Amino acid sequence: MASTYAWQSTGNSTALERVTIERRDLRADDIAVRVDYCGVCHSDLHAIHGMTGKATEGLVPGHEFTGTVTATGPEVTGFAVGDLVAVGTVVDSCGECAMCRIGQENFCYQGPITTYGSVNKGGYSRAYVVRERFAYLLPTGLDPAAAAPLMCAGITMWEPLRAAGIGAGSRVAVAGLGGLGHLGVKLAVALGAEVTVLSRTPDKAGDAPALGAADLLLTTDESRMKEAVGRFDLILDTIAAPHDFSPLLRLVGLDGTLSVLGYPMPAEVRILDLTFGRKNLTSSGTGGTRYTAELLSFAAEHGITADIELLPSSRVEEALNRLEKGDVRYRFVLDMADLDVVHNAELSTGRP
Amino acid sequence: MASTYAWQSTGNSTALERVTIERRDLRADDIAVRVDYCGVCHSDLHAIHGMTGKATEGLVPGHEFTGTVTATGPEVTGFAVGDLVAVGTVVDSCGECAMCRIGQENFCYQGPITTYGSVNKGGYSRAYVVRERFAYLLPTGLDPAAAAPLMCAGITMWEPLRAAGIGAGSRVAVAGLGGLGHLGVKLAVALGAEVTVLSRTPDKAGDAPALGAADLLLTTDESRMKEAVGRFDLILDTIAAPHDFSPLLRLVGLDGTLSVLGYPMPAEVRILDLTFGRKNLTSSGTGGTRYTAELLSFAAEHGITADIELLPSSRVEEALNRLEKGDVRYRFVLDMADLDVVHNAELSTGRP
Repeated sequence: MASTYAWQSTGNSTALERVTIERRDLRADDIAVRVDYCGVCHSDLHAIHGMTGKATEGLVPGHEFTGTVTATGPEVTGFAVGDLVAVGTVVDSCGECAMCRIGQENFCYQGPITTYGSVNKGGYSRAYVVRERFAYLLPTGLDPAAAAPLMCAGITMWEPLRAAGIGAGSRVAVAGLGGLGHLGVKLAVALGAEVTVLSRTPDKAGDAPALGAADLLLTTDESRMKEAVGRFDLILDTIAAPHDFSPLLRLVGLDGTLSVLGYPMPAEVRILDLTFGRKNLTSSGTGGTRYTAELLSFAAEHGITADIELLPSSRVEEALNRLEKGDVRYRFVLDMADLDVVHNAELSTGRP
Repeated sequence: MASTYAWQSTGNSTALERVTIERRDLRADDIAVRVDYCGVCHSDLHAIHGMTGKATEGLVPGHEFTGTVTATGPEVTGFAVGDLVAVGTVVDSCGECAMCRIGQENFCYQGPITTYGSVNKGGYSRAYVVRERFAYLLPTGLDPAAAAPLMCAGITMWEPLRAAGIGAGSRVAVAGLGGLGHLGVKLAVALGAEVTVLSRTPDKAGDAPALGAADLLLTTDESRMKEAVGRFDLILDTIAAPHDFSPLLRLVGLDGTLSVLGYPMPAEVRILDLTFGRKNLTSSGTGGTRYTAELLSFAAEHGITADIELLPSSRVEEALNRLEKGDVRYRFVLDMADLDVVHNAELSTGRP
């Protein structure tokens, strides 16, 4: 076992403390990764806060990171020491069910093994050990810090875009312009779609065109909302708070889709909202190996990464608190290098 | 104005009384139809009972009927006196919105004009007047009585089958084997799909193969339900009572669809049921001109009509009461000819 430093939840709101954790010895098909950059995802907040209202203790979040291979197991064929790699939200799965067989390990019938959670400590740390099947070579040309959010926020946008067959001429709307939404806009634009941002407030009106969107539609503007009835083939709904689907469903066209990606709780749905216009309500969560590999290749080809605020990992609490208030454009990424500095300083004093 | 006899609701549960009603003078593009056969739809029951709990008065139900053209307006081009025709649930629409322009008048943005309701008296009558655009020549070879239910039950199954691209090799399930469901089975089988009937009780186990289904799956059989996880591309959910979507969604495969067609009320949906496996929840209601014409042609080609119990129209209350208890295999159709007999008898006595 190798020890490394990590930022771990304490059970006290968003307070994290620096701790030493162990990583497993390399299995035959494992690689060891020095974590260089790890994105801060909204679900990290949920996990730290605890879904039952009581803050979680002993959790190391982080499931979208990039880093450098430091060691490889004897049967590893796809990676060598020094390779830049990316890791997302799934690090193992049964490998045998219908979902795993088609590269949708995120939907593994046995339940995917997630990057952090009951089994694993996540990417808010300086080292990670992962089966090579669930690591990806980072394509050259992608900034490793700004590419980290592709591995959760990006793939969460990519799978529904691909499942809906979005391409040239498609009309896509993105509701909520945050970590997920801003990547949804960039990816849909690069696929050739005409993209509209749906927003309750005009404060991001300048950002929408900068991201490539053709339009920003204020959902409080009743007249423009009425004009937009039935306009979209797909709405990527990234709103992270409870909300009514009806106003969004009215904007969906015949056989179109509202994909609910930011708020996973049970919700009341007016079936008649789906009936008139034969509309689909769907959802999706992160990605499997098939689409993740495809996304990285597409992102490299089109030069797409996240718009990030890069902070040293010691400022993780600040990132979490600002994320909670929606104060980020558009994704925090932690630079994990400061854990080495801390590590070395503490090594010299003999205590953490 | 021409008068005719009809069966009209009285405000007293399912009691209908024979009344004289007026039909409008023919407009230029109208045809007059002698109603020969009219199906009894579950939504007729809802309409008679009243959605607010108080039974409706003065309503003539009936929105799936076949009959014979008795007169044509001066600009009618598609029909001649004596033609056998079919009429469904929509008899007019704005004609200009995006939905009308593509033959989905059932989703007209102005709201379609329905065969009965606030404006019109329906097909439980001996005569109807309709714009020719919303009437269809009944293809030769289709029994006019058994074909009547194609116009609501049939098209309600056909549109979601077509929207989902069902064809050879598709795996379709039909939940609820009633007026809608039994036509869903026949149509899906004729499209080349492998069809499974989902049922809570084994009492229709013999009917499923007779209709062409490959299998009947008891939803109470936990072991077989578990085996069937992720099996279906499309589930046509025709259950007419409130029910939990979760057990059905578990049977839907990646990017597959649960189409809720029998129960249009708001419902709680567990979004995570849609997330894992990227599943679609949708709905649809009857059909527009495009798919209705296509359905009639397909039904004629494959010899598909409803399995019906044909009753003289004077037994309409019996039909409604038995339908309410689910005691019908699989659709009641009223033979309207007895209205003439009544009519003539009463003409001779000078009173209704």
